[in-house]
Amino acid sequence: MRKYIAEAFGTFVLVFFGVGSAVLAGGGIGIADSISITGISLAFGISVIAMAYSIGQISGAHLNPAVSMGALVAGRMTFVDFMGYALFQTIGAIIAAGAIFILASNSAGGYDIASNGMGQNGYGADYGGEFFLISAFLFEVIATAVFIVVILGVTAGKGTPMVAGLVIGFTLTMIHLVGITVTGTSVNPARSIGPALFVGGTALSQLWVFIVAPLIGGAIGGILHRTGITGTDSDA
Amino acid sequence: MRKYIAEAFGTFVLVFFGVGSAVLAGGGIGIADSISITGISLAFGISVIAMAYSIGQISGAHLNPAVSMGALVAGRMTFVDFMGYALFQTIGAIIAAGAIFILASNSAGGYDIASNGMGQNGYGADYGGEFFLISAFLFEVIATAVFIVVILGVTAGKGTPMVAGLVIGFTLTMIHLVGITVTGTSVNPARSIGPALFVGGTALSQLWVFIVAPLIGGAIGGILHRTGITGTDSDA
Amino acid sequence: MRKYIAEAFGTFVLVFFGVGSAVLAGGGIGIADSISITGISLAFGISVIAMAYSIGQISGAHLNPAVSMGALVAGRMTFVDFMGYALFQTIGAIIAAGAIFILASNSAGGYDIASNGMGQNGYGADYGGEFFLISAFLFEVIATAVFIVVILGVTAGKGTPMVAGLVIGFTLTMIHLVGITVTGTSVNPARSIGPALFVGGTALSQLWVFIVAPLIGGAIGGILHRTGITGTDSDA
Amino acid sequence: MRKYIAEAFGTFVLVFFGVGSAVLAGGGIGIADSISITGISLAFGISVIAMAYSIGQISGAHLNPAVSMGALVAGRMTFVDFMGYALFQTIGAIIAAGAIFILASNSAGGYDIASNGMGQNGYGADYGGEFFLISAFLFEVIATAVFIVVILGVTAGKGTPMVAGLVIGFTLTMIHLVGITVTGTSVNPARSIGPALFVGGTALSQLWVFIVAPLIGGAIGGILHRTGITGTDSDA
Repeated sequence: MRKYIAEAFGTFVLVFFGVGSAVLAGGGIGIADSISITGISLAFGISVIAMAYSIGQISGAHLNPAVSMGALVAGRMTFVDFMGYALFQTIGAIIAAGAIFILASNSAGGYDIASNGMGQNGYGADYGGEFFLISAFLFEVIATAVFIVVILGVTAGKGTPMVAGLVIGFTLTMIHLVGITVTGTSVNPARSIGPALFVGGTALSQLWVFIVAPLIGGAIGGILHRTGITGTDSDA
Repeated sequence: MRKYIAEAFGTFVLVFFGVGSAVLAGGGIGIADSISITGISLAFGISVIAMAYSIGQISGAHLNPAVSMGALVAGRMTFVDFMGYALFQTIGAIIAAGAIFILASNSAGGYDIASNGMGQNGYGADYGGEFFLISAFLFEVIATAVFIVVILGVTAGKGTPMVAGLVIGFTLTMIHLVGITVTGTSVNPARSIGPALFVGGTALSQLWVFIVAPLIGGAIGGILHRTGITGTDSDA
Repeated sequence: MRKYIAEAFGTFVLVFFGVGSAVLAGGGIGIADSISITGISLAFGISVIAMAYSIGQISGAHLNPAVSMGALVAGRMTFVDFMGYALFQTIGAIIAAGAIFILASNSAGGYDIASNGMGQNGYGADYGGEFFLISAFLFEVIATAVFIVVILGVTAGKGTPMVAGLVIGFTLTMIHLVGITVTGTSVNPARSIGPALFVGGTALSQLWVFIVAPLIGGAIGGILHRTGITGTDSDA
Repeated sequence: MRKYIAEAFGTFVLVFFGVGSAVLAGGGIGIADSISITGISLAFGISVIAMAYSIGQISGAHLNPAVSMGALVAGRMTFVDFMGYALFQTIGAIIAAGAIFILASNSAGGYDIASNGMGQNGYGADYGGEFFLISAFLFEVIATAVFIVVILGVTAGKGTPMVAGLVIGFTLTMIHLVGITVTGTSVNPARSIGPALFVGGTALSQLWVFIVAPLIGGAIGGILHRTGITGTDSDA
């Protein structure tokens, strides 16, 4: 149970600082100065670094059902644990989205969630670069697969555990640098579910993409890792 | 005594480069080019990295009464040392604020502290995104608690000491990326006291928030760590 | 064969996220917010970090014929392997360029490759800072030589393998910070060939520069390393 | 002799990519997009990271007479070596400034060194934030002293050599984030001499500040380190 609670806490941190950086510091509230895509990408990546070296000792700091899917496919966790991790990750993400909403609402300008959204993922008309579904889906699958390959590789038997958290966090920053324009970057169903529940509407109707595509990408990443082409658990 | 002086020196560095980056390079003086929130966030974070690997050997490089509070609650330091650390951290921060004021004043445009402030923390009307007290307080408590959880986790028995300074510094960068719009980001009473003494007015009347909230957050972080949910000192 | 496939995969990741960051998030598609040169430079550098710690275990994660050239000159790989690496790196780069094109095209505004290009390298009229061939060539040779010196040094007998991937990736970020204005920064023939095949025209007619100059720089880097002035494989 | 040549090479890299990032990518040539202060600060810092892990094995990668001064005062190098290091560092910086000038001149717009300067340090009228001499001098002394304290601390007996290069490089980035507005940031006489020789005029007449102040700061840093307050060589 302790590891499930750790996952809920860690995913809270990822969403509170990652999505929170977009909502609170991305230019929508009060002031003109925005941390822009680069700042948001750093916030997401560093949240993973921070958790990897603290709760990582307890739960592995997956913070993401797609990462747990990769670990499941790679044979590193049981199906029961996968379900528990995914559930508590999602709970943590929803609480974080609520906390962001409370912070944003208690400002002089209030917070118009209908016009500003709340860091939700999406695609198509009126979202970022207005990419079609095919691009959104493809990006999420590729980016998640690469993310999982890196995670499984750097934490593998021949990997480099001491810097693993730094490498994984920076990789998530890289993925956000490219993907924020495309889909807002999910690669993480829990991160997508949290804001979508508060925003509703299109965010909810498009939510399936950000659950299905990252999970497929996670499974592909796990399979790629097992082939031994992108890293190895054995000493073959 | 040596460790107290080390804390004063280290907190001087944190405030001189962190707050100094906002005052001297944040666009207020002479030139249009600003390092913006991302640059300021990096300066704060790196100041902690720099001190962690130099004075860290002497004092642990807390640089922050809220960090010392977390260490106290986690049972890692005595109450006497906590008081000594907090005192010398505050002295270092005040000297740094004075040094920044001297630098800023000695420029062609002079430095109008009334209109430009001096990197002080705050909330409400005319401050950043104009967040209400409740948001400011809540953000400071949450961010400090997470900060302390990361610090205690990465430096714990099963932690990763060699990269600890990098992880802690980057985490402070993440917190600033989100929080500069909200409160200017304190999570550190010493960092808040320094500039407030020079700016006076609202900065002074709001100062209690940036003493009380980070200390509460620090204590919560210490308690969370002791639960063993977010990292562990034992090998349980 | 496994290592060749690993190089194709790794170079795909480098080009997909590096070149992709310029094409998808550099301001050309749909939205005004650009990750700008600093964001693109980070994406390129982190792609190398990500691959160094995953496929690095399999193939060394060269991801770049100029890096393989440096390794060849330094006596660390055979000529047959050099040819195999270069071939599969180029294949990975071309597939990545294709993937970027598919993503970019499937957006509401479509993607006008004639006017936007696709992250290709270049020089002269209408390219970046409009540098002459001599500047473009000189920059690519110097930058690649420095890149290879760093790679061979940090991975040498007396080097620091655990942080090698971080150091090499950040070095590539530094090179991009300076070079994007000059040539778009190649230092990697495979990275240049991918987009050029899709863009055609000037990109193709200038392509030789971004094959020849990086390979010369790679060889110079290998020679510099062998002199023992910039690092050493022996314990002399 | 080999270590002297290594220092010349390393300082060439620092100036070519650090100063070069300001000249070639700082917005002066051809295109509007600038890497801005944050990008320039990263380029300077990473150049130190790159050299620390390659030529660091040969010469320690000082790249800076003020760093060598700190090492001299801390009793880590002889006076003869200090003179040799400083000489070859300066030679490397001058060659790098020449290379930057050649690159910049060979562009469609040419390069008007009189109006654009060439990344030289300075203060007062028409330079950055127009700070007075007292501010420029004070900043350079403080920043160099802190820089040397970090360098000596992280490389000391109880330090953390493996990440030393990362820590030192990031610290230089922090110093640039604050100081580019103030003096363009020297903390390194060699880095200042290179561009000043090409720019002449005010850059030359103010050059003494960027030789004297960093050397004083370097000596202060060495003394601070010897007190054992900011790190220690002994195991006291």
